[in-house]
Amino acid sequence: MKDKVIVVLSGGLDSTTCMAIAHAEGQDIFPLTFVYGQKHTVELEAARKVAEYYGVAERHKIINLEGLLFGSSLTDKDKDIPTGRTLEEIGEGIPSTYVPARNIVFLALALAQAEPLGARAIYLGVNALDFSGYPDCRPEFIAAFQEVINRGTAAGVEGRGIRLETPLINLTKAEIIKKGLELGAPYHLTYSCYQGTVPSCGVCDACILRLKGFREAGAIDPIPYRQFSALCR
Amino acid sequence: MKDKVIVVLSGGLDSTTCMAIAHAEGQDIFPLTFVYGQKHTVELEAARKVAEYYGVAERHKIINLEGLLFGSSLTDKDKDIPTGRTLEEIGEGIPSTYVPARNIVFLALALAQAEPLGARAIYLGVNALDFSGYPDCRPEFIAAFQEVINRGTAAGVEGRGIRLETPLINLTKAEIIKKGLELGAPYHLTYSCYQGTVPSCGVCDACILRLKGFREAGAIDPIPYRQFSALCR
Repeated sequence: MKDKVIVVLSGGLDSTTCMAIAHAEGQDIFPLTFVYGQKHTVELEAARKVAEYYGVAERHKIINLEGLLFGSSLTDKDKDIPTGRTLEEIGEGIPSTYVPARNIVFLALALAQAEPLGARAIYLGVNALDFSGYPDCRPEFIAAFQEVINRGTAAGVEGRGIRLETPLINLTKAEIIKKGLELGAPYHLTYSCYQGTVPSCGVCDACILRLKGFREAGAIDPIPYRQFSALCR
Repeated sequence: MKDKVIVVLSGGLDSTTCMAIAHAEGQDIFPLTFVYGQKHTVELEAARKVAEYYGVAERHKIINLEGLLFGSSLTDKDKDIPTGRTLEEIGEGIPSTYVPARNIVFLALALAQAEPLGARAIYLGVNALDFSGYPDCRPEFIAAFQEVINRGTAAGVEGRGIRLETPLINLTKAEIIKKGLELGAPYHLTYSCYQGTVPSCGVCDACILRLKGFREAGAIDPIPYRQFSALCR
């Protein structure tokens, strides 16, 4: 084992790839999952199965933030999750699926677990290319949060440090999938759909980008879908 | 009314002074209090009374983080809260009362409330002079967190912005108290003691700095104490 590390694990494709990377590096993994009133709570079961797959189910912490994150179509009943969008539409501006301060809250609470545990890193599966509309998925945000850690914690000030690891940040979805497949990531256990349907809807932004990623990686997505958008047929 | 603002309100002297300042500015105040397993839960009742005093009890949100912040003598049963320390001892290094990532978590969750609410500022009663040992009370930490807001939220990226307001950061405890008394802050309702005793212990770092502040401000602390350290007699 190298270091104790926290892996923020949603149960989706990106965070599961982060688990695979941290596992391949020999890290001592503590998975951390958040319930925040997301409509797609199916992903929590996926997160549990991924933690179990990597043999760390007993350290898997699930933090309940219901009612504390809102203002997004992922959380609010009166806001519809967009479907059937083109790549241009997906890439335009900040989507309604943006959850205010979500990654800031996730990183803050991950840090609160990491510091007393003596963990040396927090892995976060953010990805700036395919989700360029989310301000909290971009390198300049990650750099700013690293500064917060360096200046605002005992670990930072005393020089031990806690690293923010974002190994997927500059990869396309296809590159992420290729890397995950090389490392044996259990994609059959993952779940990405924003709508929370089983099988996955196939037409929300998350399904579209995932299916497109598999196609570009020359691989087959092992999870079932209800339908496919024109983009992914 | 000027802007909607969040005031992080512990029920202590500093955060109550922040309430008084935001109130004097005419802000539309939303108080936010955190339960995090602190031994001094007495402060929660103080926070409720202060919110009531300012007529904003019905928007006072209390967030429960029990079990999520730890590794401090303020939270952990097996760690003793220091008492009877000299000012030199209090000023030396990072004290055991430091709670890992506490202000980072508080600010992250305050931000998650502020952004969908349309709040334009978050008030935090940090104070770098008397509590110089807390990394998350210093100007360089606050500046780093402001960058996180600017880069990691829609409000930040789109230019509306959410300001971190720390009006006490460069004041001594005596200056804070003078300002609060000028503004009519209800210090009789506040509670600062780390040990959580009623009356306040008088010998923990928080009681010592508070009593010393009142003495230097030439004022009488209106709350009762069990005893007084040599420093405050």
